[in-house]
Amino acid sequence: MRVAIVGGTGAVGQELLALLEERGFAVDELRVYASQRSAGRTVRFRGTDVVVETLPADGDLQADIVFSSAGTSLSREHAWSWVEHGATVIDNTSAWRMDDRVPLVVPEVNASAALDHGGLIANPNCSTIIALMALAPLHRAYRLKRAVIATYQAVSGAGAAGIHELREQTAAALAGDEVRPRTFKHPVAFNLFSHDSEVGEDGYNGEERKLTLESRKILDAPDVAISATCVRVPVFRAHSEAINAEFAQPVTPQEAAATLASAPGVRLVDDRAGNTFPMPIDAAGQDDTLIGRIRADSSLPGGIALFVAGDQIRKGAALNAVQIAELLVASDAVASARQATRMKEPAVGLI
Amino acid sequence: MRVAIVGGTGAVGQELLALLEERGFAVDELRVYASQRSAGRTVRFRGTDVVVETLPADGDLQADIVFSSAGTSLSREHAWSWVEHGATVIDNTSAWRMDDRVPLVVPEVNASAALDHGGLIANPNCSTIIALMALAPLHRAYRLKRAVIATYQAVSGAGAAGIHELREQTAAALAGDEVRPRTFKHPVAFNLFSHDSEVGEDGYNGEERKLTLESRKILDAPDVAISATCVRVPVFRAHSEAINAEFAQPVTPQEAAATLASAPGVRLVDDRAGNTFPMPIDAAGQDDTLIGRIRADSSLPGGIALFVAGDQIRKGAALNAVQIAELLVASDAVASARQATRMKEPAVGLI
Repeated sequence: MRVAIVGGTGAVGQELLALLEERGFAVDELRVYASQRSAGRTVRFRGTDVVVETLPADGDLQADIVFSSAGTSLSREHAWSWVEHGATVIDNTSAWRMDDRVPLVVPEVNASAALDHGGLIANPNCSTIIALMALAPLHRAYRLKRAVIATYQAVSGAGAAGIHELREQTAAALAGDEVRPRTFKHPVAFNLFSHDSEVGEDGYNGEERKLTLESRKILDAPDVAISATCVRVPVFRAHSEAINAEFAQPVTPQEAAATLASAPGVRLVDDRAGNTFPMPIDAAGQDDTLIGRIRADSSLPGGIALFVAGDQIRKGAALNAVQIAELLVASDAVASARQATRMKEPAVGLI
Repeated sequence: MRVAIVGGTGAVGQELLALLEERGFAVDELRVYASQRSAGRTVRFRGTDVVVETLPADGDLQADIVFSSAGTSLSREHAWSWVEHGATVIDNTSAWRMDDRVPLVVPEVNASAALDHGGLIANPNCSTIIALMALAPLHRAYRLKRAVIATYQAVSGAGAAGIHELREQTAAALAGDEVRPRTFKHPVAFNLFSHDSEVGEDGYNGEERKLTLESRKILDAPDVAISATCVRVPVFRAHSEAINAEFAQPVTPQEAAATLASAPGVRLVDDRAGNTFPMPIDAAGQDDTLIGRIRADSSLPGGIALFVAGDQIRKGAALNAVQIAELLVASDAVASARQATRMKEPAVGLI
């Protein structure tokens, strides 16, 4: 299997490399692409140095599987061209997530959708993945009608620059120096602010819109009602979310806990006596999404309230992408995709 | 007016002193009480040093108005004894908030309740006050049915020790040193955790229960349904809350914004184009509660979502208490309370 990572020097790219190695993904050849600025640098993979290249102009990444995490505009411009050259692209950006031709996949939720692809598979937004690790098993059992979600999102959602900003600003604040925002518009040290994505006419920002629309697509539940409030907090890694959910069928906390305890990819952390529940420092670096504070929604009979924390670089991005690749390999859906692509894919110029 | 502050060296006590001075409260005599540990220290008030005393054993604080913020157990034990000795007590603790004989007051919301007191008036929980600064005006106009609230609470809610803990742990974390929790059970530097109050059998913690029960009492709306998720975040000062609210009468965001724009004690910060909304660093040190992100609840026709930030030491505690005292003075309800107390107050030993 020839694998390429576009954006291999970024936070998600680095995590992809680590995960491919850690999980023993069958990489025969690895290519790492990045911007001109990073070209010529090397990244480590299985004990050897891989030289970072700039993207070839012709779109032939010489890869069977391409992980794309170098930004939405780049994916929007080039993804189908990579597919044209025979690659199956797993796209970490938001470029194609809501496109009808592109499956949007969380392997624990809708694995089968991944196999019906036309060369391009989208990896959902990190907050969406983490919410659905809890909501999807409950939806399957009780049918989700409505969810109200408030997020507590780590700065690493904005990549290495976000991490740097929190570290620098915090040191400055502790020293009594002036805090100068650069990556984020507002100070992040000892502060929090509404998510740094554009706010639409309805007052919801891009992150909140993704959480709503992507959840509906992944759950194949177009009528699910979601209202999200996405907030950036001074945490380095792992997103947390407070969720109140209403189902077609009333659910007790005991039923919800039992359903989630047997769900894949999650771990219950719900120690009421010890006041220990999901926290970002415990979720960071973990594959599992942590779920706790499972209780009856005191404002709605039959509803459930809970709290989740998940590593948004790992399960929220890189791990989910590698899991999709593993699905494809296990189902032999990489090679067959190349056939399908040639039949189904419309002319690139039309997209 | 003879004024006493019990717990005068704590975070709220210090803020009370600053506010009494800043607002020109008619203090003729000031007494400051604190624990044995702080006795003999001095605090500044109007340019002079006031010596901190230990509480007199007989319960006579030699004061017309007592601000009590030295802990719930102390108030539970002594508050009515102070009242017996002629004081009107404004209690910042949770000791008496839900007692039927005790008004629970946010002056902008239920000022008249303060005047019908039996010597003891309770100051609500900080998260409750901040939520109600937004919800009460909307409730008055459209009748609140249900609210789902997720909080982002500053460490100063745990007093000076919480502030110290965040500062020390953050410095240690930046230096790569081990972080040792002391005030809080869990690390707070670059982390967040479920509120550090005891979790009940229904899975809700003390802070969440207060938000629900106190809101109902203050709004005089026993049927209002509330589900809160209270979370401690690495912010020094000012609590933030994401609120989704449902009303008996459908509300548009424009109506909600107009209602809140004319409400007392709040300031709208709702700049969608500039992505600028309420933030704790802007709310810290301010009297007004900041309200923004006012939008239609995308999961419920006629519902409203919004985000608030308020200084929980100021409006969430000390300012609200001083406002209650101002109400009493303006209505001459301090002296009359002494009369009323003698008639209405049951024997202390029975409480």
